[in-house]
Amino acid sequence: MKVSKKIATATIQLRRQLGARVATSEDARFAASFDGSKLSFLPAAVVFPKKEADIGVVLALANKHGVPVTVRGGGTSLTGSGSPLRGGWVVDVSKWDKVTIDAEAGMATVQPGAKVAAIHAAAEAAGWFYPPDPASKQYSTIGGNIACNAGGMHGGRYGVTRDFVLALRGFLPTGEAVKWGAPTKKFSAGFNLRDLWIGSEGMLGVITEATLKLIPLPAARWTLLASFADEIDAFRAVKVLFGLRVQPAICEFLDRYSVQCAEAKTGKTVFEGQAGKPVMLIELAGTPSEVADQKAVVVAWAQANTAAFREARDRAEADELWSVRRKCSGAMFALGDAKLNEDIVVPLRSYEKFAVFLDKLRKKSRLPIPTFGHLGDGNLHVNIMYHRENHAEYLRAEKAVEELMKGVVALGGAISGEHGIGLAKSPFLRMQHSAAEIKAMKAVKDALDPKGILNPGKMFEVFKVWEHPRLKIELPWDHK
Amino acid sequence: MKVSKKIATATIQLRRQLGARVATSEDARFAASFDGSKLSFLPAAVVFPKKEADIGVVLALANKHGVPVTVRGGGTSLTGSGSPLRGGWVVDVSKWDKVTIDAEAGMATVQPGAKVAAIHAAAEAAGWFYPPDPASKQYSTIGGNIACNAGGMHGGRYGVTRDFVLALRGFLPTGEAVKWGAPTKKFSAGFNLRDLWIGSEGMLGVITEATLKLIPLPAARWTLLASFADEIDAFRAVKVLFGLRVQPAICEFLDRYSVQCAEAKTGKTVFEGQAGKPVMLIELAGTPSEVADQKAVVVAWAQANTAAFREARDRAEADELWSVRRKCSGAMFALGDAKLNEDIVVPLRSYEKFAVFLDKLRKKSRLPIPTFGHLGDGNLHVNIMYHRENHAEYLRAEKAVEELMKGVVALGGAISGEHGIGLAKSPFLRMQHSAAEIKAMKAVKDALDPKGILNPGKMFEVFKVWEHPRLKIELPWDHK
Repeated sequence: MKVSKKIATATIQLRRQLGARVATSEDARFAASFDGSKLSFLPAAVVFPKKEADIGVVLALANKHGVPVTVRGGGTSLTGSGSPLRGGWVVDVSKWDKVTIDAEAGMATVQPGAKVAAIHAAAEAAGWFYPPDPASKQYSTIGGNIACNAGGMHGGRYGVTRDFVLALRGFLPTGEAVKWGAPTKKFSAGFNLRDLWIGSEGMLGVITEATLKLIPLPAARWTLLASFADEIDAFRAVKVLFGLRVQPAICEFLDRYSVQCAEAKTGKTVFEGQAGKPVMLIELAGTPSEVADQKAVVVAWAQANTAAFREARDRAEADELWSVRRKCSGAMFALGDAKLNEDIVVPLRSYEKFAVFLDKLRKKSRLPIPTFGHLGDGNLHVNIMYHRENHAEYLRAEKAVEELMKGVVALGGAISGEHGIGLAKSPFLRMQHSAAEIKAMKAVKDALDPKGILNPGKMFEVFKVWEHPRLKIELPWDHK
Repeated sequence: MKVSKKIATATIQLRRQLGARVATSEDARFAASFDGSKLSFLPAAVVFPKKEADIGVVLALANKHGVPVTVRGGGTSLTGSGSPLRGGWVVDVSKWDKVTIDAEAGMATVQPGAKVAAIHAAAEAAGWFYPPDPASKQYSTIGGNIACNAGGMHGGRYGVTRDFVLALRGFLPTGEAVKWGAPTKKFSAGFNLRDLWIGSEGMLGVITEATLKLIPLPAARWTLLASFADEIDAFRAVKVLFGLRVQPAICEFLDRYSVQCAEAKTGKTVFEGQAGKPVMLIELAGTPSEVADQKAVVVAWAQANTAAFREARDRAEADELWSVRRKCSGAMFALGDAKLNEDIVVPLRSYEKFAVFLDKLRKKSRLPIPTFGHLGDGNLHVNIMYHRENHAEYLRAEKAVEELMKGVVALGGAISGEHGIGLAKSPFLRMQHSAAEIKAMKAVKDALDPKGILNPGKMFEVFKVWEHPRLKIELPWDHK
């Protein structure tokens, strides 16, 4: 992307004000040009802010000169929400990574570049627990987690990022400093722009600090692996489980195709004697006696509702079980060199219908679609596998994604549960939301960002992701 | 208030379209003219919608003719957020009160007029629990609870209304039907206007249906009453308790003045041998063994950190303890015939400083300020008592409220935790929020409600509540 004269002039002014905090080397610009989507757009400069006021400087200049500004943390977004589509300036907050735990109040005050895993570790060291745990947690930062309302495996019982954010500090797109909420569990004073920012994918404000709610660290955990005759049977069984008022901390599901991928790759059977069958991993958490109470209910349920089940004897065996869940994602590349990983959500009442729908989609598209994910909240990762260079497959994959999104919305679900829209899902936003809904969202955007400088071109404009090449690079968080 | 010709004409058109659903009798208009604040403004008409589309009709006409529209449910708001300040039309949704429980998914689908107590009952009958429980729950409706982000006693452990709303159906101020969120625990598709509506006090949209998240009904409860030498001692002790990673379902506090009011009124000592001392009521909830685990921790804490404590032997004795909490509010009227009930929030780290601050405020204002409330989330009800007809007291009360709000914000807290702003707290919004923050909120309002018809004049315009007479009537939920 050519840097326009207007932006080049503005960048000179930016350097004058922020000096060495502004990088314009080819390397720095390339490194900031893409996120986990591998869609790359070269910015004119990358800003590494030292203090909060630097953000105000960047935004004031950007507003004056009409420079696009995209904020990035770990850059792990899978949708392109962190890629600077229109160039301009990238603000890299990944060095702002301080985490402070208030061990009495059970709160964490964090800078936007703090890695989610670092927040987990700091909280746990103080006897507290921060439940949201996206798979990218070793790399993804809390700013991005808030921007995309990240979820993870604990959503069903504990909720998602949104449920843990008490207060935000930051800047409006116009460069004015603001605070939303307070470090308290109640706040009912004025419109709730805190939660409007959460999930807005960096288009409504820049976060410079967040106060997170923590919950007491569960003292005990217990893990069970169950297998089922087929997917419908598994979904039927999980409804029975939830009907018993059991809320597992984690309830992960791998369909037969995911299991078969993992088995083919590792050469081991996931569940001895149940090769190639769908499995469910259930983890209970709480006080030792709470877990013991629930365990009795779950074991009785498993006896009546699973093909086979076994408990993890200890933490090491539990970790062994969990390793299957982690491996299955990478193992899918045996089925195709390209993957469309969609993070759709289906309401519990539609689980069984969705299994039927997905089988039809497999037949119609003639593509492998291994599916796994979070049964506690219906957030399933549907992986449409194809071969990048095979044009016919590529067209069928494109068609299958569209049908998947339509089907999910028809079942009362959501086109994204935790990744957000960014560029990759922009073609489907109109399936989820009516014209009136989108008009309202855009009106809010225009009201808060009148010059349209913050992360422009995302979410509402249809981006034809198929027409754009992706970088052929391996990122640290790519599933091996 | 005189009905302008413009509004009279629009009302004729409204009646033509909705017939008998539009009431214009003096009685109907008076009944809709006030809420729990007893600030009364006569509307031109009251609409009792029969179906969702009726709301669209009302709003389309209101936009065309510039008619103010205020939506009401139970009318229990204490801030005037439900009073039709500018007249126009009141939409009364209190007859829309259907509650449907999804016993497998643990969700409730509710109409906006459903009383919160009815939602509790329906959920509990199905083995589920809806934690938000404002004191007005027998009268207040879920639509208003969502509009004001209501809280109650369970906020510290379980969260507030906002934390339990998954999806909303309703209408934009412009009369277009919209849906926000989905009946799922994850949703990350588009800007989060669901949560922007929550707490917006009926100024950004009209809710016609909500899907609420439920949690498993706690099978066991256990109650403890503790007394303390003074308020600072109580606050110090509760910090120790939370530092032990115990999260009581309820942790209510009554300062010495509240206790003394209750004792004077009932002629009984709240805690035998501890007359006139501040008390704390702690309730644990969960599985029987979880409660047993926590009980051991709490009893050990009580031995080391309270002046005296006693457990409730059974549910009847627990109810007896709770009756004190309910009585203290009404008993305060022995101290004055008027009460400013402020629902401020203080962060845990500032509890002790707040006790010192409040003592100074009592001395300075020479007014009784009994205080009680929710220690789990720092949401304290500060009751400034005065005599309505005593002008000097009235002026000191006015001054004391202002100082209270300033003090709370200086301590990092919030001017409202669960009542919202409405009219009564509009003079203080600028203490909580900066000019930039309020400008952003108003920009959002203008973007979504360009004609400014929905609940106009609330929150952002300073209403001098002192200059307006209040109705001298007794409402069913007035504390006896």
